[in-house]
Amino acid sequence: MRKLRNRQWLLKSRPEGQVATHNFGYHETEIDPHQIDDGNFLIENKAFLCAPTMRNWMDPPSKNLYPSISIGTPILAPAVGKVVESNNKQFPIGSRVSTLSSWQDYEQIDPTGRPVNFVAEGLSSVESIGKFGLNSLTGYFGLTKVGLPKAGETVVISAAAGATGSLAAQVAKILGCRTIGIAGGREKCTWLSEEIGLDGVLDYKIDKLNDGFDHLCPNGIDVYFDNVGGAMLRTAVNHMAKFGRIILCGQISTYDSDQAASGPEDMMRLIYGSIRMEGFLTRNYTAEFPEAIKQLREWEKEGMLTLKEDIRDGFDNLPKSYLDLFTGQNRGTLVVNIRPD
Amino acid sequence: MRKLRNRQWLLKSRPEGQVATHNFGYHETEIDPHQIDDGNFLIENKAFLCAPTMRNWMDPPSKNLYPSISIGTPILAPAVGKVVESNNKQFPIGSRVSTLSSWQDYEQIDPTGRPVNFVAEGLSSVESIGKFGLNSLTGYFGLTKVGLPKAGETVVISAAAGATGSLAAQVAKILGCRTIGIAGGREKCTWLSEEIGLDGVLDYKIDKLNDGFDHLCPNGIDVYFDNVGGAMLRTAVNHMAKFGRIILCGQISTYDSDQAASGPEDMMRLIYGSIRMEGFLTRNYTAEFPEAIKQLREWEKEGMLTLKEDIRDGFDNLPKSYLDLFTGQNRGTLVVNIRPD
Repeated sequence: MRKLRNRQWLLKSRPEGQVATHNFGYHETEIDPHQIDDGNFLIENKAFLCAPTMRNWMDPPSKNLYPSISIGTPILAPAVGKVVESNNKQFPIGSRVSTLSSWQDYEQIDPTGRPVNFVAEGLSSVESIGKFGLNSLTGYFGLTKVGLPKAGETVVISAAAGATGSLAAQVAKILGCRTIGIAGGREKCTWLSEEIGLDGVLDYKIDKLNDGFDHLCPNGIDVYFDNVGGAMLRTAVNHMAKFGRIILCGQISTYDSDQAASGPEDMMRLIYGSIRMEGFLTRNYTAEFPEAIKQLREWEKEGMLTLKEDIRDGFDNLPKSYLDLFTGQNRGTLVVNIRPD
Repeated sequence: MRKLRNRQWLLKSRPEGQVATHNFGYHETEIDPHQIDDGNFLIENKAFLCAPTMRNWMDPPSKNLYPSISIGTPILAPAVGKVVESNNKQFPIGSRVSTLSSWQDYEQIDPTGRPVNFVAEGLSSVESIGKFGLNSLTGYFGLTKVGLPKAGETVVISAAAGATGSLAAQVAKILGCRTIGIAGGREKCTWLSEEIGLDGVLDYKIDKLNDGFDHLCPNGIDVYFDNVGGAMLRTAVNHMAKFGRIILCGQISTYDSDQAASGPEDMMRLIYGSIRMEGFLTRNYTAEFPEAIKQLREWEKEGMLTLKEDIRDGFDNLPKSYLDLFTGQNRGTLVVNIRPD
């Protein structure tokens, strides 16, 4: 195999406040497919998931435990690809895998350093990181493993029209919970109440959340799925029921800004309410991915789940497509397909 | 039985910032021991526990889920007393019970409205709310039920020389954890390192906590027992290990002030660290009190636990003794004995 042309999108400069196209720089290199370290394999990326949390990775290193992309290196991103060279028998040439890769055509992967999952049989590459990828799995594991909702409880989902939120909301319904969604704008709210069938919807652009919670959650919130953080989280904390659980999944209200995602205004409420707030990463449940994907596929087949993908094409479009996440222009899980199956 | 003279300390005014003796007012009433509602009993209080969190109860009603003492009514307080009249067969005359009562000689108790525990055989009244009372039980249940420490893990206890903190620290040692205590001043720190035998001690009055954690907890904090809140909590959050647990027990740094107990400065660390923060009330574990008290008594008998009581005498001294909690003048669990056994 001769050297391979490798297109890349690099982090050219760190965003100050909002991320913009000028923070990304295009570059090309060559990859020698014969220089693969023992135990590693070479992946040819097929599609990338655009995840909001990648914005955090563009910040300078901090104590926040997340990776910080170095200036001049490719943008880290969840990806699906095909193994094209391998020095690891567990990952033979031709396998399709999803893992944390980066915005480039090829990358050498050390599977001891990051979780690598095989694409389930019957799924397209795009589906494996889209409909049945990390966004959906995050909603599923966050709700079921961290939120531990019981039938009849009141569950509130923030960013409920998003890929993660809408999955969590639908699973909460399936589990028999009274489910309230928060979203921005009439189109999203109508979709949540009429198509998804939630028990209540709050439009944060026009509704006062405090009054909305008083009205829709008179006995308090048992489980709050926090994708947003900030003022919305603080208002939710004031409405949590005793023994309530707050699933700390994301803080998108602060990602694309200079501000840190500050916490509750009064911890005493957590104490007297015996309230639990718990952060999690979906990769904590890697071993359970296959079973979860099987469950989600079944529910989708039975018409119990609506999973939205927003598929863009072309390596060139990566930065532009990514930015749509922060202006709400995507409709469901945003995937950029660079090499169709 | 004729009418009983009933001395009271009332909340005369709400503290603005620091609580002071002028916030309390002395009053006397008479109690008719024959007017006891069905199912209730009359308790003759023998001793009161002075608990820091009572300061919160002196604030106006809020969304914080804790009681707010009405102006002109007796100060709510954990107490031990003797049943002197009863319309409830479960609580016959002569029983000794601990419950939430208030600063007065007599109070009619409705046992359906609050937990009531019988004093364990062999314990004095003072011991039942002192050494083996709520402060110790709070340390025990918070550490074991919320913190879930495993042998070999690093546990950090704030206010570690206090009644709750020192119990939690000693139990952490018994469970095989590397245990670091934070306290203020040389006397307390020396006691913790030399008599209690902690693995490390930080004096928040002179040590920089950030550097101290770097030095004493190089692999991060697995369990943080938070009695203090505020800046100390925020620094600890930045040093939590992955899958760390923060036991939200108290926020004493803000009780005696006009400020709310604000939370972490960046929730992202909780997300990427899969960190859990959980509030609790000791009364959640009421059913397990007898077993826990038995365990603590055994450990004390075997010389594995040092339990400190600071016993004051006299009803008249209640407000003054209570204030000592906030100036650090107490040495261990502060109990005011108004009617010796």
